[in-house]
Amino acid sequence: MPITFRDATKADLPAIVTLLAEDTLGERREDPSLPLDPTYERAFQIIAANPDQRQIVAERDGAVVGTMQLTFIPGIAFKGAWRGQIEAVRVAGWLRGEGIGGQMIAWAVEQCRARGCRMVQLTSDKSRGAAHRFYERLGWTRSHEGFKLKL
Amino acid sequence: MPITFRDATKADLPAIVTLLAEDTLGERREDPSLPLDPTYERAFQIIAANPDQRQIVAERDGAVVGTMQLTFIPGIAFKGAWRGQIEAVRVAGWLRGEGIGGQMIAWAVEQCRARGCRMVQLTSDKSRGAAHRFYERLGWTRSHEGFKLKL
Repeated sequence: MPITFRDATKADLPAIVTLLAEDTLGERREDPSLPLDPTYERAFQIIAANPDQRQIVAERDGAVVGTMQLTFIPGIAFKGAWRGQIEAVRVAGWLRGEGIGGQMIAWAVEQCRARGCRMVQLTSDKSRGAAHRFYERLGWTRSHEGFKLKL
Repeated sequence: MPITFRDATKADLPAIVTLLAEDTLGERREDPSLPLDPTYERAFQIIAANPDQRQIVAERDGAVVGTMQLTFIPGIAFKGAWRGQIEAVRVAGWLRGEGIGGQMIAWAVEQCRARGCRMVQLTSDKSRGAAHRFYERLGWTRSHEGFKLKL
């Protein structure tokens, strides 16, 4: 069954939050119960209105089976290069191992290339060893340490 | 001598590019010669026009002695939390060890808090061991692997 990608609509939001919540790390911090917490809809509207943000869904046979967020970041470094950034990549648990993640990342990289980005970047929690091997197989370089500070 | 912080103006651009170029990793990829490559000015104007981007300079006695870029990223994850992101942090080489970097990061974190961010994030090249110890001393968690893909 082929996978297709498109920008999310408001109607996809429950499926997106469910994908975020079903993740090992996400289950402690998301609330997919309906009606959705209105903070999710506000966040979606901010992303949808921002030309440097894209909330993406992957579809298979009419169902949302994956999601990710793309951010396009201008910069002065690297002679004024734009960067693409991928955040919150999730694939439905029952479809893992079918290569959907690889298709999602390849598609995201092409979107960044089409926007003129010189580099794409992402961070992955140090506990996600399988994800790290996955990105290295796709040709990414694990060159940086990722630091976070909760406020 | 006190350090002050402000949003950069176009007149700061040669000093910013010089700071980026004087860095060990940056010297291979930047060109601070005057007149500046026009790609730098175009990049600055894009950043200055974007309310989610801030190019910051640190000043000491009227001179630019540091720079960094702040990006504010909306998201659906974490119940619709905004993230702050810090990129391209540089302090003039002759002023290292005087605590300016620590003041810059503390100031950046306060800007992110004032914007309502729930988290601040940054990545640092794995070769920059001193920087990693510096961020850990400031209370940051080295929780993620940072992946890059050049296009």
